Amino acid sequence: MQKLYNFGPHKLCENQVFYKSKFCIGLVNLKPITPGHVMVIPRRIVPRFAEMTSDEATDMILSAQTIGKVIEKEFDATSLTMAMQDGPQAGQTVPHVHMHIIPRKAGDWANNDDIYDELDGKQAAGVKRVDNDERKPRSIDEMKEEAEKLRPFFNQHED
Amino acid sequence: MQKLYNFGPHKLCENQVFYKSKFCIGLVNLKPITPGHVMVIPRRIVPRFAEMTSDEATDMILSAQTIGKVIEKEFDATSLTMAMQDGPQAGQTVPHVHMHIIPRKAGDWANNDDIYDELDGKQAAGVKRVDNDERKPRSIDEMKEEAEKLRPFFNQHED
Repeated sequence: MQKLYNFGPHKLCENQVFYKSKFCIGLVNLKPITPGHVMVIPRRIVPRFAEMTSDEATDMILSAQTIGKVIEKEFDATSLTMAMQDGPQAGQTVPHVHMHIIPRKAGDWANNDDIYDELDGKQAAGVKRVDNDERKPRSIDEMKEEAEKLRPFFNQHED
Repeated sequence: MQKLYNFGPHKLCENQVFYKSKFCIGLVNLKPITPGHVMVIPRRIVPRFAEMTSDEATDMILSAQTIGKVIEKEFDATSLTMAMQDGPQAGQTVPHVHMHIIPRKAGDWANNDDIYDELDGKQAAGVKRVDNDERKPRSIDEMKEEAEKLRPFFNQHED
């Protein structure tokens, strides 16, 4: 049996988890905006950033730093876009804090911040930007493979 | 004499600083994207997020949390957009880590994430999105007034 993790009302398979710290996990994405686009979320279902404990928030930022260093290098990027849509009016559609970490490189987007339209499309697909649905979801196997590739780079906290 | 703070190669006046923690400061913006759009930066000139010490990164996220709660309430918002453009290929133009904290409310932007185009325009004005230069810079007095309004909400760390 695979362990399941909460992401708001959704259940995530362990397959998709490449990083585990005491209070957070790191996930690969179903529809990454760029190769290596991952997310860090608290283990606990916490809808808004303000509701995270100090331990959770600290763990999230240090995890993001650790993960960011690895994915920037492993996906041949030179920069990172980091974003949190904190609350529905900021475009958050899953009521569970999630920090996006997106490897960036020269020319990956014609306009540097078109990336955020993609981010939006991904999260609100079918609602606001149906065109972005063109980005096909990956298979479970693809996600599993990416998570397996990333997992050895990190110390994994026991569940 | 006003104390000056570093923001990459730029010098910031104390007038513009509304928040001081041990490792970070909080600044009001010359050209806020929405009312209450502020930034948290480390006191030390640190170009990339990966180069922050754990103390600095922890301080930054806890400061962002503290500041976010206050500005969301004080600017009658219901959500927050939080973003870091970490490196030039992510749109960072000042080589000094800065986390944007942007109060959001329903209908503030036709498309929720047009906000990021504005963010881009602000940071790369005259380079990529000259049209966003239409947002007039505020006067020193306006920024000073906003910083003065916000300062009492926070414990201020001695310089």
